[in-house]
Amino acid sequence: MRRLINNGYDVVEEMLEGYTKAHSDYAKLLENDNRVVVSTRKSSEPKVGIIIGGGSGHEPLFLGYVGENFADAAVVGNVNTSPSPEPCYNAVKAVDQGKGCVYLYGNYAGDVMNFDMGAEMAAEDGIRVESVQVKDDVYSSENFDDRRGVAGDLFVFKAAAGAATLGADIDEVVRAAEKVNRMTYSMGVALSSSTLPATGEPIFEIEDGDMEIGMGIHGEPGVRRSKIQPADKVVDELLSYILEEGKFTSGNEVYVLVNGLGGLPLMDQYIMFRRVEQVLSEKGIKIYKSLVGNYATSMDMIGGSITLVKLDNEIKKLLDVPCDTPYLKIK
Amino acid sequence: MRRLINNGYDVVEEMLEGYTKAHSDYAKLLENDNRVVVSTRKSSEPKVGIIIGGGSGHEPLFLGYVGENFADAAVVGNVNTSPSPEPCYNAVKAVDQGKGCVYLYGNYAGDVMNFDMGAEMAAEDGIRVESVQVKDDVYSSENFDDRRGVAGDLFVFKAAAGAATLGADIDEVVRAAEKVNRMTYSMGVALSSSTLPATGEPIFEIEDGDMEIGMGIHGEPGVRRSKIQPADKVVDELLSYILEEGKFTSGNEVYVLVNGLGGLPLMDQYIMFRRVEQVLSEKGIKIYKSLVGNYATSMDMIGGSITLVKLDNEIKKLLDVPCDTPYLKIK
Repeated sequence: MRRLINNGYDVVEEMLEGYTKAHSDYAKLLENDNRVVVSTRKSSEPKVGIIIGGGSGHEPLFLGYVGENFADAAVVGNVNTSPSPEPCYNAVKAVDQGKGCVYLYGNYAGDVMNFDMGAEMAAEDGIRVESVQVKDDVYSSENFDDRRGVAGDLFVFKAAAGAATLGADIDEVVRAAEKVNRMTYSMGVALSSSTLPATGEPIFEIEDGDMEIGMGIHGEPGVRRSKIQPADKVVDELLSYILEEGKFTSGNEVYVLVNGLGGLPLMDQYIMFRRVEQVLSEKGIKIYKSLVGNYATSMDMIGGSITLVKLDNEIKKLLDVPCDTPYLKIK
Repeated sequence: MRRLINNGYDVVEEMLEGYTKAHSDYAKLLENDNRVVVSTRKSSEPKVGIIIGGGSGHEPLFLGYVGENFADAAVVGNVNTSPSPEPCYNAVKAVDQGKGCVYLYGNYAGDVMNFDMGAEMAAEDGIRVESVQVKDDVYSSENFDDRRGVAGDLFVFKAAAGAATLGADIDEVVRAAEKVNRMTYSMGVALSSSTLPATGEPIFEIEDGDMEIGMGIHGEPGVRRSKIQPADKVVDELLSYILEEGKFTSGNEVYVLVNGLGGLPLMDQYIMFRRVEQVLSEKGIKIYKSLVGNYATSMDMIGGSITLVKLDNEIKKLLDVPCDTPYLKIK
């Protein structure tokens, strides 16, 4: 194992302690629940509460996006494990300003179950909570509703937060998030496994020199495994799925994210972006804006993903709402 | 090899193409020299030009800090190799606004030689260029003047850029940068080698499960090699060198950087920061501000470093000057 940790069972608590000390100008732990990171920049104007979350090990997802005009709270589970219902509920109690809250998270069974229980607990207090499950991983299922959420989380969360910042009510926030959810398409490639802190072991085996196209961020099986191919060929293959699935055509405008899964050098990520830009340009698809970097990781996993969001004026407006968090600043 | 690249000899050009397309709102390649990244946000008020640079493979260093009120240009070498004199000179020609320029880079023999040649070429055109070599790696030599520059680059560059933004002349910019250079102390640990794109091979061997305290970012030998120890013990050891070397005492105020070398998960970096904060707090040293993340890497190297800057009011003021670049935004 090549990790710098203490006891493998303490990583989440210790990370949260370090994170909230490093970023105390943005976020703090809830006093009565150390698995809820809440913004210290609460909106003075009451708005719909934006609560994101999921398992740990995907940093800066989720906690890194708590701050001004983005998430009001992140609920934090153990590594690759959904948070419990209690912190989901406690986040609502901490964040609600009388306009209800929206949970947003990747579509995994454990998260759905526990966030739903949190919402039921909040309902008993008379607080309305709606949920949006992100489903951007195009290879994870043929059916949209069965798809997992990966790096595209960022855009769906941002759209919801943008709508809330602009004063939308809870129904409108959910509508905006679901609209962007439908327009967000991702696919990834893994060249290594991540290392579980508790065991010191990889979560799956992959030989040095091999890659798996379409693999999920927890090691869910992909399309095929082969020797690592040149970056341009890998990008072409990932884009072929994304472009077909999203029915992207000449004249479309897109937001691009080339995302590193943790261990992939920035150098390689920019080489990937170069090819993404070439292919989209050849196809007459216009890049409106782009992000390159480690936005949603799987700890030390070496690999990357590509996300395209098909834009219209409404989506652009939502994604462009200024925000200020440790890991996303838009002005 | 677990890298996503095309031809290993094309990585720098392809990265630069991707980078400048992804961040065209901050930077572009010089038309007559594709190894110079220049800011697209030139100051309307003439100021001293700030030019940083060095070998590739340390991204986001150096190019990621080109932008508004930080570096005006970055000169880009091959992987782990100094840039040639020509682009060092071309950067001056592109950036100079009649007030001279300052080169800032890590203290490596090849960089010193080539930047000096660039400065001589500029002198023939009547442009004054001064140089500051960053020397923050406390373990690299007992003598300050022989020390290498590592992640502390960021603070020395920022101090120079801050002074230039505030209207300082070239002598004053150099003085401010050298002052911060003397007050900046770093030390790192490596758990793996980086992988050279041209060969696909690691630059040195280190067994899975081993670490080397004090190793340089190009694999320069460190203090000792052992089994990986708990993060807290590693932090304690790194800090013991830094605190002694910098003669930090109770009442000092510091800027902290916990820096990931590329492959170390953010989770582990925040666990390191937690311990840094504990130790400093116990010693009565006050953290003024802190940064955690991959600010100066060695591609896919797994490891990290700690940097402390001993602050006074002048240094705080220089480091707090607002700037806007892809990888450092201060407001």
